[in-house]
Amino acid sequence: MRALLLLPLLTFGAYADAAPKNVIYMIGDGMGPAYLTAYRYYQHQLAESQQQTSLPIANTIFDDLLTGMASTYPDDDTLVTDSAASATALATGVKSFNGAISVNRQHIPIGTMMQLAKQLGKANGIVASSQVNHATPAAFVSHNVSRRNYNAIADMYFDYRINGKPVADVILGGGTDYFVRDDRNLITEFKKEGYQYADSWQQLSTLSQKPAIALLDKTGLPAALNSKQPQQLAILTTKALELLAPAEKGFVLMIEGSQIDWCGHDNDIACAMAEMHDFAQAVAVAKAYVDANPDTLLIITADHETGGMSLGADGKYLWLPEVIQGVTATGRKIADELNAASTDEAALSRWLALTNITLTPEEQQQLLAQRGKEQQALRDVAVKLVAKYSYTGWTSSGHTAADVPIMAYGKNSTDFHGFMDNTAIAKQLIRYISTTQP
Amino acid sequence: MRALLLLPLLTFGAYADAAPKNVIYMIGDGMGPAYLTAYRYYQHQLAESQQQTSLPIANTIFDDLLTGMASTYPDDDTLVTDSAASATALATGVKSFNGAISVNRQHIPIGTMMQLAKQLGKANGIVASSQVNHATPAAFVSHNVSRRNYNAIADMYFDYRINGKPVADVILGGGTDYFVRDDRNLITEFKKEGYQYADSWQQLSTLSQKPAIALLDKTGLPAALNSKQPQQLAILTTKALELLAPAEKGFVLMIEGSQIDWCGHDNDIACAMAEMHDFAQAVAVAKAYVDANPDTLLIITADHETGGMSLGADGKYLWLPEVIQGVTATGRKIADELNAASTDEAALSRWLALTNITLTPEEQQQLLAQRGKEQQALRDVAVKLVAKYSYTGWTSSGHTAADVPIMAYGKNSTDFHGFMDNTAIAKQLIRYISTTQP
Ligand SMILES: [Zn+2]
Ligand SMILES: [Zn+2]
Repeated sequence: MRALLLLPLLTFGAYADAAPKNVIYMIGDGMGPAYLTAYRYYQHQLAESQQQTSLPIANTIFDDLLTGMASTYPDDDTLVTDSAASATALATGVKSFNGAISVNRQHIPIGTMMQLAKQLGKANGIVASSQVNHATPAAFVSHNVSRRNYNAIADMYFDYRINGKPVADVILGGGTDYFVRDDRNLITEFKKEGYQYADSWQQLSTLSQKPAIALLDKTGLPAALNSKQPQQLAILTTKALELLAPAEKGFVLMIEGSQIDWCGHDNDIACAMAEMHDFAQAVAVAKAYVDANPDTLLIITADHETGGMSLGADGKYLWLPEVIQGVTATGRKIADELNAASTDEAALSRWLALTNITLTPEEQQQLLAQRGKEQQALRDVAVKLVAKYSYTGWTSSGHTAADVPIMAYGKNSTDFHGFMDNTAIAKQLIRYISTTQP
Repeated sequence: MRALLLLPLLTFGAYADAAPKNVIYMIGDGMGPAYLTAYRYYQHQLAESQQQTSLPIANTIFDDLLTGMASTYPDDDTLVTDSAASATALATGVKSFNGAISVNRQHIPIGTMMQLAKQLGKANGIVASSQVNHATPAAFVSHNVSRRNYNAIADMYFDYRINGKPVADVILGGGTDYFVRDDRNLITEFKKEGYQYADSWQQLSTLSQKPAIALLDKTGLPAALNSKQPQQLAILTTKALELLAPAEKGFVLMIEGSQIDWCGHDNDIACAMAEMHDFAQAVAVAKAYVDANPDTLLIITADHETGGMSLGADGKYLWLPEVIQGVTATGRKIADELNAASTDEAALSRWLALTNITLTPEEQQQLLAQRGKEQQALRDVAVKLVAKYSYTGWTSSGHTAADVPIMAYGKNSTDFHGFMDNTAIAKQLIRYISTTQP
């Protein structure tokens, strides 16, 4: 094994000094290019409403870091990837089929960059606003023929060993439903292994060194738009960097803005913009880390676009972020609150309070007609009304094949310019990691 | 005047050697980011159907040249630009209102890069697959408060003088309806001024030196998908470069892939892919010119996105370029042919011949129900069926605010990396042009 490892190390000999010590890899799930454009104008609207600015429109942190675009197609003839196939590509440099967690078409595991990093003595961290065993983080740490095998994937976070240790040293996000089960309590096992554990935002500060795990919700964290905890992802990112920073041979940290995609599936633009803001704040934390630690590379991309979102719809040359700024709850929460209201009148008053959108009598009837049915029916009407008033277009409840943005900052960031396939991003990162002296 | 010009020239003294001698500025009207992705997979499908390749999917010429993304918002609170406001930004570096042809909100003309180039002794060319006085080329050469004043804009192509000469030395595209009118024959006037003239593809070869003008159709050229003339834009680009190459102080050549946008307005994906291919072939000609003339800069971008196009729709994780490859006429032409068919049966047979899509009986009835009405009604059904079978999504018959791609190649191309506003592209080009010794 050692001899096999030496060859690439010799080949990359001159390269080793040039490679970044640490890699921070941020993935905005579903963050197609229109999400970046939308977020810029949404941020500008906020600044304008506070009379802080007018034209020209200020860059967002994404704009400042943009370097290229990536294709995302999976290894079949669909062209439209799911999060599992794309995460496999981003974690291993190898394309696979939709649903695959770092296994190929023959269901054979494909080594991931975090597994390689661990093998070479680096530390690894994963941070997600979903359950930590959701498709995107899962592909960095585990292998499964289906992303839906949540329990098996969670088990692998503990059971899959490299040099006798789990792959991820720091695991922050949601997911107690999968880690604390009737048939197995993985948290107890992680604790026995020496992991510090936190199960609340308050306890998060007690995590003082790696290895550590924090699961702050049963599945995903609350949607950013509904959450009482501001800057969820930024706080987790700060903690992960604090825990990983001492790693002598450096670290690989994957941070997912998981729920941008979930908002996209719901065609819920207010939800999506709040998630983009949550993700942007985490990006700012990572960028500051790179400023203070120039031997670190920050890469930001997306796994795919969700929803076929457009700014402007129905022939109108207009997009109105001010409408979106007025919406203070996700479509799901609006639906729940309208269903919980005691009367139609109370429901309409709740609508106005949560959205600041004055409906026509016809639209009020459309909304009320779905009260008392499944949440989804009422939610669909709610988000369609927000889309209509803001002139936001959507074409799908699923993903699309749009190329996604690449942003890069810090050491070797110039290697990520222009158009790349998503596998090329991973291959380049793996090349850096492989230069680490074991 | 001379003293005023000397100051910037001195300031840019060191810069002058570094600036490109020639600028080729290509604008894909309506070419949002999804159009580039779509074209890649459409090209791949073509190669695959000829059994030339499988995965990985090859880069297109756009992919090879991609360097960044640009925002396109106009100088009002709509965020969604039209082609006139965006062309004004791309030609002058100054944002204006929708409809404006290089005038500001106070209707005062804004100097364009071609006017500056002419002042400094450079040559200018415009090539378009629309009428040459359409919004995008118009903003480089003329000034008007409304893009709709086609005759006044055409007049200005001849009447607006710098150093006693029209701004554009080479004008190739469509538009005899506006240049040869009952009230004025601009072609006669251009000829008297010494311009060579061609009014057919056959005559194009007779244009042997600038100044020269060729108007090859009454308004726009035929849609690429319907045209009997292959490589329309590439042929015009080759001719323009041949005529401009001898210019001692270099040239500015603007080439518009005008009808990508028109297909987008029609939500006609087969039409759009054929226009992208026509534009790509012109890009290849321009790139070859840069390879042979390394003192030339090639910049390619779009003015905005049209249609809110997505690859994937209606919850399906699939996009099928093979369906689009089978469609051999635009929706407009399909509608005309189906309307011209003598019987419903003949119409359905014509549908199958032109699209290779086998419809259900219900879909056949939807199509036939629109026969004999306005072309648009039948066209809408036709393109909706192509969209449905290919899983292409559309949200609008108008434009959207999506950021657009930037591609750059050749001298100083590294100045166009990352995210830029569309005005920043123009300002940079104007900076180069202004270093020309008068
Ligand atoms: Zn998704
Ligand atoms: Zn248009």
